[in-house]
Amino acid sequence: MTFSLTVSGSSSALPTKDRFPTAHVLNVHERLFLVDCGEGTQIQLRRLNETIKLSRLDNVFISHLHGDHVFGLFGLMSTLDLLGRKNDLNIYGPPLLGNVLDDHLKYFGENMAYKVIFHAVDPNDNQKIYEDKNVTVETIPLKHRIPTCGYLFRERMPPLNINKEAIGQYGLSTEDIVRIKDGEDYITPTGEIVPCRALTYYPYMPRSYAFCSDTTYSEQVAELIQGVDLLYHEATFLDEMRETAKQTGHSTAKQAAEIAKKADVGRLLIGHFSSRYDDSFLVNFEREARSIFPNTEIAEEGKTYQVREIN
Amino acid sequence: MTFSLTVSGSSSALPTKDRFPTAHVLNVHERLFLVDCGEGTQIQLRRLNETIKLSRLDNVFISHLHGDHVFGLFGLMSTLDLLGRKNDLNIYGPPLLGNVLDDHLKYFGENMAYKVIFHAVDPNDNQKIYEDKNVTVETIPLKHRIPTCGYLFRERMPPLNINKEAIGQYGLSTEDIVRIKDGEDYITPTGEIVPCRALTYYPYMPRSYAFCSDTTYSEQVAELIQGVDLLYHEATFLDEMRETAKQTGHSTAKQAAEIAKKADVGRLLIGHFSSRYDDSFLVNFEREARSIFPNTEIAEEGKTYQVREIN
Repeated sequence: MTFSLTVSGSSSALPTKDRFPTAHVLNVHERLFLVDCGEGTQIQLRRLNETIKLSRLDNVFISHLHGDHVFGLFGLMSTLDLLGRKNDLNIYGPPLLGNVLDDHLKYFGENMAYKVIFHAVDPNDNQKIYEDKNVTVETIPLKHRIPTCGYLFRERMPPLNINKEAIGQYGLSTEDIVRIKDGEDYITPTGEIVPCRALTYYPYMPRSYAFCSDTTYSEQVAELIQGVDLLYHEATFLDEMRETAKQTGHSTAKQAAEIAKKADVGRLLIGHFSSRYDDSFLVNFEREARSIFPNTEIAEEGKTYQVREIN
Repeated sequence: MTFSLTVSGSSSALPTKDRFPTAHVLNVHERLFLVDCGEGTQIQLRRLNETIKLSRLDNVFISHLHGDHVFGLFGLMSTLDLLGRKNDLNIYGPPLLGNVLDDHLKYFGENMAYKVIFHAVDPNDNQKIYEDKNVTVETIPLKHRIPTCGYLFRERMPPLNINKEAIGQYGLSTEDIVRIKDGEDYITPTGEIVPCRALTYYPYMPRSYAFCSDTTYSEQVAELIQGVDLLYHEATFLDEMRETAKQTGHSTAKQAAEIAKKADVGRLLIGHFSSRYDDSFLVNFEREARSIFPNTEIAEEGKTYQVREIN
């Protein structure tokens, strides 16, 4: 079962010649979730055509109303229409985004063949805002210059697998197996009750991904994302610019790593690099973060990361 | 004196993995004019940093309100602000663009340090809408599904040069030369009147560029752009799709060439190719257009074209 993240853009407010503004695509069991949508996202996604099938995208989550996180929505909505979309598109974000979308669709949505459904979230609260059979999504309050939240994706428990040995041992029929995998105990022909848990196992533990951009250093974030498998945390600056980071509502690579360490996450991805640093310089971000949290990587555009490897 | 065109995007409504939506940058005597601004334009312009200095851009012309011609404006306005712009930015386009900009700036323009000044143009009329000491700009009514106009840039007559021989022949002083170059006749010490035209010449004839996208085949366009040096005309389809072109308000490569021929232009650039054609296929557009108008080229992204070579 796929649970992966593809980075579409990893720049901050000013795109560079090499980096697009923020957008992440999560693939959860072959359904796509887009988190933030900076300008050019649809262009990046079309370049990643093999990985990203836009027909599988039904839900978009926007962290806040700075242009580098939202200006790609307009072109994406138009392109989905041109590609023949009929299904609703759900967009989640701070309340003001609803007004932005209403105004936009007044001019550009008249003949669109699908509906945009806006879901306002409270960026100051940690709430479950979405669920389906595979995943739940919660808001993570962040500390930025305007109301901003991250999003925490938690996979649900996977379906039970049956122990192969048990099938032979008890001579289980297909119907028995279906019932046991649904959680029922097994009753042998002699009336013995064999508990479900003795016959089954979970093929893997549920996985989780937290998206935290943009934010200053916030210990509350570390509490909310305890133990996630993959954390994306912004790292706009190196620690030598800690004061600038604080003033502009951003974090340094070191601070992102401190959050990862406190939250005891599996792996840290950092991104949202200031345009003052060109690509060749980003190794310094990695080095700084790894000095605190070794399992850190730079978010590379176009690259797909497994939330956690499972066998 | 520079008068050149840099193509930022040459795709039609759906961007492809290789092509951005429409945007052209004109350099007229080192001031920049942006014509249309599809999504990703600012990203392209930053890639062309050596050619395009955003501080030299004061005027933007939008042909119509389809997303692939306008969705890049939002990010561009934001980036100009982040780059420290203080000068007004003038935006010209159909009246409804004024409402779009008002609504947009309500959400995203609050702290912008420069002013956006919108100038409504009538897309159904051929009017002069802009002039400065180097250039005038006129609207060209086009025939598309919504109100749409092209833009015709005409360079003004260049300053007069003085004939070098005349300086020696009449022993002209620096003050004499300044007056003569300003258009005055020269009066010799003996009272002889030497007409200005006998002492001077224009170093080159004024150049002109017409931008025509999006439009069906329109003979009125050919009349309005008679003799321009460089014509950019959309060619969304090959002529085998002439009916689709007509229905969607677009042109074929052959039709673009027919307009170029009727208008007796110097050179034709074609672009706005449908996403159904990948880059390797575009040679067929060139071949089709050249069968009617040999001096045709494909608009290549990132490439700069001289409006006309001058010595």
